[in-house]
Amino acid sequence: MIILGIDPGYGIVGWGVVEKRGFDFRPVAFGAIKTPPKTPLEYRLNIIYEEMNAIIEKYHPEEMAVEELYFNTNQTTGIMVAEARGIILLSAYRHHLKIGEYTPLQVKQAVVGYGRAEKRQVIAMVTSLLKLNAPPKPDDTADALAIALCHGQSVSSLIREYKER
Amino acid sequence: MIILGIDPGYGIVGWGVVEKRGFDFRPVAFGAIKTPPKTPLEYRLNIIYEEMNAIIEKYHPEEMAVEELYFNTNQTTGIMVAEARGIILLSAYRHHLKIGEYTPLQVKQAVVGYGRAEKRQVIAMVTSLLKLNAPPKPDDTADALAIALCHGQSVSSLIREYKER
Repeated sequence: MIILGIDPGYGIVGWGVVEKRGFDFRPVAFGAIKTPPKTPLEYRLNIIYEEMNAIIEKYHPEEMAVEELYFNTNQTTGIMVAEARGIILLSAYRHHLKIGEYTPLQVKQAVVGYGRAEKRQVIAMVTSLLKLNAPPKPDDTADALAIALCHGQSVSSLIREYKER
Repeated sequence: MIILGIDPGYGIVGWGVVEKRGFDFRPVAFGAIKTPPKTPLEYRLNIIYEEMNAIIEKYHPEEMAVEELYFNTNQTTGIMVAEARGIILLSAYRHHLKIGEYTPLQVKQAVVGYGRAEKRQVIAMVTSLLKLNAPPKPDDTADALAIALCHGQSVSSLIREYKER
């Protein structure tokens, strides 16, 4: 099973594609979609849409795992991240991917075994589980791989089936 | 100039197309995109995307005006509205519409002349300015028409030019 993990954002969208074979995971490809600062949001959203489409069409993931959003003190940033996340869900839906959503706590629990793990512990586990030579950069990419691993470890009942019209 | 006004949402997206001729406005078409409750968000986002595309391709607006978001106490709802708003911006951008964004205060100020006007006052002014026989329903549609009127009354310097790549 090929899984696409996504760490949503509007400046940087971390992404990682992993293949799950039995209990083992193999990295397929990973990176980050970056959008130019100080350009209109709709322009940035369109870049995210086109790059998401390109990634899905290149690696053919069957399922996408994406982080759930919660809002912190910076509401303006939160709104823009949510707007970008809508684009990410749209791209996945239009490519018929099943979509799983996870909280940061679920991701840490799945990857490190401890919901309050620190970011560096998550990155170390991702690097180890995928037998990478070095930690993936930027951190958004490591987070995206962690989300993909979390999804792969989850039982399929956690996967939200999208409804055919 | 043909203007598309949008009141963003994920359950109901109000929309209204008006034509501005000099200082006069003429209603072209208006309505609401509705998505079925209790279906996955990505399914609803896709309906919004497809209906937005259909409206733009049918009425050929040159500019879109959309309400800015702010967050109230219900953050989950706010996140979903923002996700839908991202889709709305994407559709407009991909059809080369110029995009203007307005706060509720700006819309009320423009349409009623008073930033703290009540909703019924806004609806009454929209009905009067567009010489409609009855107030547009649902309220989301009336709001969308108010946003379009606000945009039409604004000086062009308020319009954000989208940058060509």
